[in-house]
Parts: sequence; structure tokens; C-alpha cells
Amino acid sequence: MAELLQALREIVSERNVLSGDQISDDYTHDECLNVAPVRPTFVVRPDSAEQVSRILTLANQHRIPVTVRGAGSGLSGACIPDPDGIVLSTERLKKIVIDTDNHVAIVEPGVTLGELDEATAPHGLCYPIQPGEASATLGGNVATNAGGMAAVKYGVTRNLVLGMQFVLPSGEIVESGGKFVKSSSGYDLSQLVLGSEGTLAVVTRIIVKLVPRLSHRMTLLAPFLSVEAITRTVPKIVQSGAGPLYVEYLDALAFAGACRRKNVDLGLPQEITSTAHAYMLILVEGAVGERVQEDAERLAEMCAENGALDVIMLPASKAKLVIDGREESFWSGKEAGMSDQLDVVVPRASLAHFMTEVQNISQATGTFITGTGHAGDGNVHLGIFQPDEQKRGDTIDRIFDLGQRLGGVVSAEHGIGVAKKKYFQKREDPAKLALLRRIKQAFDPNGIMNPGRVFDLEP
Amino acid sequence: MAELLQALREIVSERNVLSGDQISDDYTHDECLNVAPVRPTFVVRPDSAEQVSRILTLANQHRIPVTVRGAGSGLSGACIPDPDGIVLSTERLKKIVIDTDNHVAIVEPGVTLGELDEATAPHGLCYPIQPGEASATLGGNVATNAGGMAAVKYGVTRNLVLGMQFVLPSGEIVESGGKFVKSSSGYDLSQLVLGSEGTLAVVTRIIVKLVPRLSHRMTLLAPFLSVEAITRTVPKIVQSGAGPLYVEYLDALAFAGACRRKNVDLGLPQEITSTAHAYMLILVEGAVGERVQEDAERLAEMCAENGALDVIMLPASKAKLVIDGREESFWSGKEAGMSDQLDVVVPRASLAHFMTEVQNISQATGTFITGTGHAGDGNVHLGIFQPDEQKRGDTIDRIFDLGQRLGGVVSAEHGIGVAKKKYFQKREDPAKLALLRRIKQAFDPNGIMNPGRVFDLEP
Repeated sequence: MAELLQALREIVSERNVLSGDQISDDYTHDECLNVAPVRPTFVVRPDSAEQVSRILTLANQHRIPVTVRGAGSGLSGACIPDPDGIVLSTERLKKIVIDTDNHVAIVEPGVTLGELDEATAPHGLCYPIQPGEASATLGGNVATNAGGMAAVKYGVTRNLVLGMQFVLPSGEIVESGGKFVKSSSGYDLSQLVLGSEGTLAVVTRIIVKLVPRLSHRMTLLAPFLSVEAITRTVPKIVQSGAGPLYVEYLDALAFAGACRRKNVDLGLPQEITSTAHAYMLILVEGAVGERVQEDAERLAEMCAENGALDVIMLPASKAKLVIDGREESFWSGKEAGMSDQLDVVVPRASLAHFMTEVQNISQATGTFITGTGHAGDGNVHLGIFQPDEQKRGDTIDRIFDLGQRLGGVVSAEHGIGVAKKKYFQKREDPAKLALLRRIKQAFDPNGIMNPGRVFDLEP
Repeated sequence: MAELLQALREIVSERNVLSGDQISDDYTHDECLNVAPVRPTFVVRPDSAEQVSRILTLANQHRIPVTVRGAGSGLSGACIPDPDGIVLSTERLKKIVIDTDNHVAIVEPGVTLGELDEATAPHGLCYPIQPGEASATLGGNVATNAGGMAAVKYGVTRNLVLGMQFVLPSGEIVESGGKFVKSSSGYDLSQLVLGSEGTLAVVTRIIVKLVPRLSHRMTLLAPFLSVEAITRTVPKIVQSGAGPLYVEYLDALAFAGACRRKNVDLGLPQEITSTAHAYMLILVEGAVGERVQEDAERLAEMCAENGALDVIMLPASKAKLVIDGREESFWSGKEAGMSDQLDVVVPRASLAHFMTEVQNISQATGTFITGTGHAGDGNVHLGIFQPDEQKRGDTIDRIFDLGQRLGGVVSAEHGIGVAKKKYFQKREDPAKLALLRRIKQAFDPNGIMNPGRVFDLEP
């Protein structure tokens, strides 16, 4: 151990290797509600791909588990360390290059979404993935294929990443993709490493596509009698060609929670708040103010024609508060004693059916369940309030079974990590799991990369 | 062999196994200019994933090479059979389901782009990938990650495919993804199989995203003094927020060829045709006619401000002819004796530098080279006219070296196949090639899937 410590210090310098009491609690957990913190043996903080390569070579020789850590804002426990392992923190990998001619950014994995946003703003460009946590790193976003509200317009991390540099456990540094959208030159390794939650390689550089930063926005809020009425309206909204940035829904409870959290009063009459079971929130953006106004009006009409109890154009300041309140639903839930949060995705049109059945599961298991979600893409966040572990597991199992029957998967954007592994493995076809294991083997024959995450190496 | 024939007949029925003289020339080649046709031992025409599974199981047991074939419109020789192998033709895998609520299509691989377009039109939806050949199949598009003109707006096949079903050489049928954009549930196998040119698995079902079919279009043609002037203008066009569907360029020769091919006279004055070295073609589309008109005018102004010698709004009928002429540049080139066509991609902003250097290579090697390309995404199609094989190889090598120095890759959208394999392998990092081989091994341990394509199994 002393020998390993010395070797790590030689690579990154003494002050960038932490051990024992030097390791703060921050390194022991992420934001997942129900995975216990773990203290690793070492935390190392490299500042280049070459240092990452030397660290991995060493760890691979000694068969020491390596867990990569960004900002620790994950919700699946994927970056919780192995007690006998190394945490490779990306906090010093912070370079950003904005290439305005090619409309791309080249970033190191420790760059946060907030930092990238600041760097792109002066150029009239932006990176449009908005998973709702600006302190999250690009490396973390790549690890989980982060999504968020803007996915209905811009897709997910996968759709914006054009290339990357990553380091294999062997220490080999691999480049994949580049500053271009098109490539048909061998298997797309970037897309394979993307979403692999640290189990294949360490990403050391990411090339992302930037899009024009559009300056005009309008936000609509439409209360509906039911989620079903919202679900029926969504395809029309999407097909309108208006290209909304957000198409969100909140159940009555989540909506009230978001308003309360941000102390915002929209002055909705009681006859609406007492009958509306779900709220649709639509944000339209564009380069031309008049068009945004026209589009918002057109979408408002569509909502009205499809059963909205009312349609309110929110003033910008209030819109921001409601959206922020919605983004922070995880924190509201946590404060209210939420025991778990799921991020199931089902085909968009099945969302209402899914939510109805979830309410049946809620009643059958005596579990309180709240729902908010990305109505435009079938991704719903369910807050599970059930202190009893066995009952909770049973409830979650039933929800995942339901999602699977409707053609969905366990996680849309939070990842599997450790928290959802048993649920994921149980539902996956053994032939597919075996293929995932063989791919893992192709990258990481000694199984040092984030072991025990996503799936187990042995069936 | 007789035993194998019998076994194949039992799977797909007698009339769906071809051998000897029953195998028409069509099955022996694609549209690649310089790979010799090869007659396979058998052609089989399954009509279900189950039949594909049984064929692969059999081939795997007997270690018989399997080459999947769609419409044969490829340009890299990837579907040219092995003489001792089976061609698995997707011509009977033709089912299409349009899901209007989820805005997706579920198609079998033998469906052509033209057929999918017909099926989506009545619903006001479309699949926006336009590689320029409507007879191409979706399976072929998935195999090469097809791109085309509309990539500047909608991306490439990779960005539209949400999931797939594929069959491993073991006969195992694997499902990946679904009718949703978001997933963070294990490695994305769809994205790995996508672009693998038939070397990993046989795709039997594809889920693609559909987008609103926009009814209003305007096309601008802007002659410029140089490609460089066009390249400088492109980032402004893209950043405008107008979201053009096409941003193309044609050199003077390719432009004249396109007009001649379609017998279209745009009445350009001679002082322009004699000075313009490159033409930019921009197509804007939208749901609202007035906005398309405004956007087109705004982009026309931008072109004028950035050195366009003129800007012409093409009438719809003439626009179609010029675009079709541009799409058919491969055929024009072929008729004129073109020996090869490259589809290098470089970062968009490096296109002008690339083309200047290509002209230097042209002069140094005495090779006539024409250029048209997707200016919006840095992908250029070079027609190589050089009958001498050695000189041609040398010219192509120099061009690929140049592309690589500028951060590009060998193929943007045609694929590597057999035609570009030696050029691809030579430029790839050995560590990366070794990783590609290990991944291939994870799917296809006996190496029966399209052997000898993309890269060699042994270094």
C-alpha cells in the first residue's frame, strides 16, 4: 500500500493523492438516496490524459478498482467508491476550448455545465443539454448519457457528443470521432463509452456540438383534468413544427410543491386548482421574438382545444421560478422524506396509462408516489415515499415491470449504478447481459473499472 | 454443400435459397467503382428474425461467411459477397409500422427510404435522412450510418435510430433501445451495431424517430469566387437560427455538370460563370411560408455581405433539378470515367484549406479531381479521375493524409467496406484497431460476419 501511495504521488505529485483522513466525506457518496457512503483507499487528482494513463496502468497491474468521480451529483450511486479502490477525481481536468468556426466545444471531463455555459455565452452559442444541475460535470453527463428538459428539442448527451479521448485500463489512450457530425469509419467507440457509467474507460476529453443561443422565450402553463389529456395533446404540440424546448408535466402535488418551494403565486382560481390533476408546462424559444409569440399563441390554442382548463402565458420571472421549482423536485422530495426516485422511460404515448397503473400500485402497496416528468419524451420521475425497505422494493419492482410491459426501460437518464442494478439485471435478457459482459471484457479484462456497477461480471 | 443447401431450404423454403445460375449478377456487386464482383455460394431470403436466427446458427456451426445485402446501392464494396459464403438478402424483410402517437417508425431492414417516405407522408411526418438514393434500404443506411444533404439540420442515421433488434452469429436475438430518445440502462448496443457494416450482427428491426414534414421550402444559389469564401460564410448561416436543411457547395465543374445533366439553364450571366469557382446551395424549409421567405431573404443578405457574386432564389422546379443534378454527381462522374469517389470529412472550417491542398495534390500527381460537398458539415465528395492504379492509390493516400492532418477521417458516410480498408487501417492507431478487433470478437467469435470488411481480424 505504501508502495502504491508512493507510485501515485510520483504521477500526480504529493498534494494530489489523498488517503485516510485527508479524504473528505464529499468523495464517499453521490446524491443517491439509498446507497451508503464508502471511503476509498486513495483519491487521485490527475490533470492530464498522460497522468490518467499512468494511474490506470498502475491500478491495472495491481488489480485495484478505479472509480471516476465528477461533481458527485449523480443519482444512482455509480461513483460511490470501492473501499479497496482508487477514486480518480476529474476536478483538475477543467480545460475548455470553444471553436466558433466549427460550432463545437472541446472540454475536459471536470468542466461543469455551468462553466461551459459561461464560456459559450459570449459567442452566441450554447450546449443545450439541461439535466437540471449546473454543477454537474460534462464527464458525469457523458457517463450517464444525461438528458433533462430540453431533450424533446435537442435530444440527449449522446446526440451532442461528436467525439472523445478516453484511456483504457491498459493505459492506452484512444481518440474517437472529431469535430464533425458525420463518420462512417469503424465502430463508434465514443457512443459505446458514452453511458457506460465508468465501467469501460476514463474519458479525458469530450468534443460536443454547440447550437445557436436563442434569445427569445415564452412559457405556457396549462392545467388539465388528467395526465391522459396531456399525453393526448403532446404529439400535436411536437408535430406543430414550433419545436418547443420543454414539454413537461407535473402532477397537482408536484406543481404545488414547485410553487411553494419558490414562493411563487400564479393566482390560479380555486376552481382550477381544485380540479386540475396535472399541469403541462411548455417553453418555446427562438431567434425572432414575434415568431416565438405566434408559436406560443398557437400552442396555447392547441392546449385549449385539447381540454386545458386554462392556458396562462407566464411572465419571464415567474416562469423561471416555476421551472426552477420543477428542476428542484428531487430536493423538495428529499426534504419531504422521499425514499427513492425513479426515472423510468416509456414510449411517450404510454405515459398516461403508465401513470394510472402507478397510482394503482401506489394504492395496492400503501406507498405514496409523486410524479413529474418530461411529457415530450415519456420520461417520468416518480418520488417513492415508503420507509419499509421490503415494501419499497416490491413497489419499485412492480413499477419497473409495468414500464417494461409498456416497452420502456429502468433508467432514462440517471443511470443504473448500484442503486438500480438488481432491477436492471433482473429484467435484461441473459443473452444481452452476456454480450454486455463480453464487451466489458474487451475494454477491461481485469475488471478494475468501477466494478459491481450496472451489471455483475458473473451471471 | 448439398446438406447445407437442404438445411437452408428448410429454413426459408426452396424458392428463397438461390445457388449457381439462379444467382443473378445483382447479388455480386454494389455501386463501388473499383471492387470486382463476386458470386456467393448461396443467396438466402429470410422473412423473419427467427429465420435469420436459424440461418446464422447454421452458418456459425459451419463457419460459413455471411454477407448481408440490402439494395446494393453502397459505395464501399461492403456487401460484395465471399465466394464461399452466403448472401443474406433483406429483400423480404419489408414491414413498416408508423406510430403517430410516438412519432416513430418501426421498420424491417429491407424497407427502402422511398417506401418509408411514402408511408410517413399521409401522417404529416417524415424520416429526414437523405443520402441521395431513395432505393437504398434502411438496413443499408444503418450499416453505414448514412448521412447526406440534410445532416446539417437533422444529423445522420445515428441521430435518428432509437433502437433495434439484431441477431448475433450465435442465433441469439437481442433487443436494444425502444420508442424513446432517453435511455441510460446499459451500453447502447444499437449505436455500436450502427455503422458496423455487417461485421457484428444482422439487424432485423429498426426504430427510427420521425419529424414533422414541413411544407414550405426555398432554395438559394450563391456563386462565390472561392470555396474559401463559402467556408467563411457557413458558420454565420448555421448560427443564424434559420436552421437550413441543406448547405451545399459545388465547384464550378460539378455545378456545370449538375445543370447539364438535368438540362437546366439558370441564365447566369457570363461574367459570373467565368469568375465563380464555387457555388453555395442553401435550402430553407419550415411550417410557415412567410417565415421561410424571411429566412431565405436573411440568408441571401448574409451571402451577399460575405462575398457572394450574386444570390438567386431558385424557382421550385429549377431548384429540384439542380439538387437532383447535385445528388447524381456520382452518376455524372461515373459516366465521365471517374475512377474513384472519396467522402472524406474534415472539421467544417477546414474545408477551404482542404480543397486548396487537394488541388495541389491534383497538380502534383496529374490527377483530375472534382469536388462537391456538404459545406455545412465538412464532408466533401471528391471525384478522382486517374486510370493508373498506382498513381491513383498515391493520390488517394495523400488526400487521406491531408484529411487526417486536419482532424478528419477517411469516410463520412459511405463506409470503409473493402474499398477503403487499407487506407483506414493504415491511419488508425494500433491500440484502437486492437480494441475494435476485441469488440468484433465479443459479437462474432468465429469471424463469420462479413469477414475482411472494415479491418482485418489479424494485425
